[in-house]
Amino acid sequence: MSEIAVLALGGNALSRVDQLGTLDEQYDNAKVMAKSVRSLVRKGWRIVIVHGNGPQVGNLAIQQEESAGLVPALPLFALGAMTQGALGSLICLALSEICGDEIPGAVSVITHMEVDPDDPAFSCPTKPIGPFFSRAEAATLATERSWTMVEDAGRGYRRVVASPLPKAPIEAAAIATLVAAGYIVVAAGGGGIPVVPGEQGAYRGIDAVIDKDLAAERIADAADAEALVMVTGVPAVKLDFGTATERTIEEMTIDEAKRHMKDGQFPPGSMGPKVQAAINFATAPGRVSAITTPELVDTTLDRPAGVIEGARGTRIVAGAGGAGAAAS
Amino acid sequence: MSEIAVLALGGNALSRVDQLGTLDEQYDNAKVMAKSVRSLVRKGWRIVIVHGNGPQVGNLAIQQEESAGLVPALPLFALGAMTQGALGSLICLALSEICGDEIPGAVSVITHMEVDPDDPAFSCPTKPIGPFFSRAEAATLATERSWTMVEDAGRGYRRVVASPLPKAPIEAAAIATLVAAGYIVVAAGGGGIPVVPGEQGAYRGIDAVIDKDLAAERIADAADAEALVMVTGVPAVKLDFGTATERTIEEMTIDEAKRHMKDGQFPPGSMGPKVQAAINFATAPGRVSAITTPELVDTTLDRPAGVIEGARGTRIVAGAGGAGAAAS
Repeated sequence: MSEIAVLALGGNALSRVDQLGTLDEQYDNAKVMAKSVRSLVRKGWRIVIVHGNGPQVGNLAIQQEESAGLVPALPLFALGAMTQGALGSLICLALSEICGDEIPGAVSVITHMEVDPDDPAFSCPTKPIGPFFSRAEAATLATERSWTMVEDAGRGYRRVVASPLPKAPIEAAAIATLVAAGYIVVAAGGGGIPVVPGEQGAYRGIDAVIDKDLAAERIADAADAEALVMVTGVPAVKLDFGTATERTIEEMTIDEAKRHMKDGQFPPGSMGPKVQAAINFATAPGRVSAITTPELVDTTLDRPAGVIEGARGTRIVAGAGGAGAAAS
Repeated sequence: MSEIAVLALGGNALSRVDQLGTLDEQYDNAKVMAKSVRSLVRKGWRIVIVHGNGPQVGNLAIQQEESAGLVPALPLFALGAMTQGALGSLICLALSEICGDEIPGAVSVITHMEVDPDDPAFSCPTKPIGPFFSRAEAATLATERSWTMVEDAGRGYRRVVASPLPKAPIEAAAIATLVAAGYIVVAAGGGGIPVVPGEQGAYRGIDAVIDKDLAAERIADAADAEALVMVTGVPAVKLDFGTATERTIEEMTIDEAKRHMKDGQFPPGSMGPKVQAAINFATAPGRVSAITTPELVDTTLDRPAGVIEGARGTRIVAGAGGAGAAAS
């Protein structure tokens, strides 16, 4: 077996909300993920890892502003590129410690993601990023840097940026080349560095935030992967979350997932994009999407017989006849 | 022809000393380099780019300290990883604008460089990095972070780190795979992220600064390249620089280069490591090293007939009989 699984790892999975965000903490978190990669590699899976960068890019944005008088501030897309470097290195180091000689090698590719300059998100930026500012500071930044500033829950003003849909990873073919050569590839960190196409093959950076689950789906599609897993903090998707009728989903079809989405079962800021990415990916035949924790990725993808309830995550499959092809 | 040339691009070539270091300035500088890459690609060369990161990692180190109360400071090796992300992206974007469809694609690989934990440089750190501190701050940092602090020319105290010799790029095989597939590869930015080997294939980051010219030589050796070019601010190497007998070297053998080095012709902080990298590389047969500006890379490598004096840079070749094999 040499099927490809793309793992989408939340930024908070590397820098948890109850932690300071030191490199040591992030490294320990990366090792947890590396252990699940090791299990998958032992079963013959080829792995591509897409990581989030929310907490990390937020920290960089704060540092940019604190030092603005001493060091020229960099645009947001360049901060995203920096987090790809730092977290790409961190994940490769963690994989080397946990998997060592068991893996052929791990390599991080700086990845740009094409977005549509006419994406409606650009005319309505909604994603808050970086530090809080006073009203006066916000007015200055809006003028000097053309930033969109909004008042945020009484805590001050923040910059908001667009969150356009990812179209295609620019480095798709290079990533596929490395996967085919046997490498574990870290790609499209933070959803990829957002770029818009110019003339004759050129592209340029643009300040935006791309959802990393939707970006992982684009990577998985481009790599012709068999599995896409949104690796997160909850073991499985729940219906009627937090109510008396709360229940766990072990498997749902795309049609079921779409219906639950329409019914408002999945909040836009958290489970919503994960389920949407799962739907997008599993629509093509022979594919499976999953949503679960690092520890349960393995049993969720394998669907082994006799696993007790709650010991695996949620699978999203094409439909009644479409799921079998992707089971190993 | 499909020979490989590795271009080692100075950090100051991207962020010049007479500039503020904004991203726009760095991007314009990267486009100058991209034009020389385009000329080489048109002649059939495959290209690997190694960039420096001195000014950029210095800026990040300042930002870390300015924001230390708000955001946990990251270790130096992680800052190096960040500059690989930012500059790797920048160079790929510049290549896309200048070369467009003429190149098969450019891709940046986060690169770790193995160094020897017993390298004597670690017991005698000499490379200043980051901001200046007061005597009291320096004492605190020395205690809390085990930094080596030295007084720097009356301007305050600075951290100094080791500058060990690069041994081998961890991602050498992945880089070779991408070069063979036709990509222009950006690798080992800032000399690579310094790592020391652990057990069973593991490696971990260590705070150090690796000379990017010596690192580029390791990349060129690992990629089995035909040419290594130190791309810098001066058109050619000079002897007796700044004296009445100053003269330009168009070509020298390794033996000549070693003799000039021994005679103190090349200062340790600037031309010294470039000439040393050139010597290291050109020692194997069929290889040529060169030292020149972005504009002259092309004519220096090609050694075309009839080129007037001063219109090409310096070539370093194995010896009387060893140079011909690498000429195109």
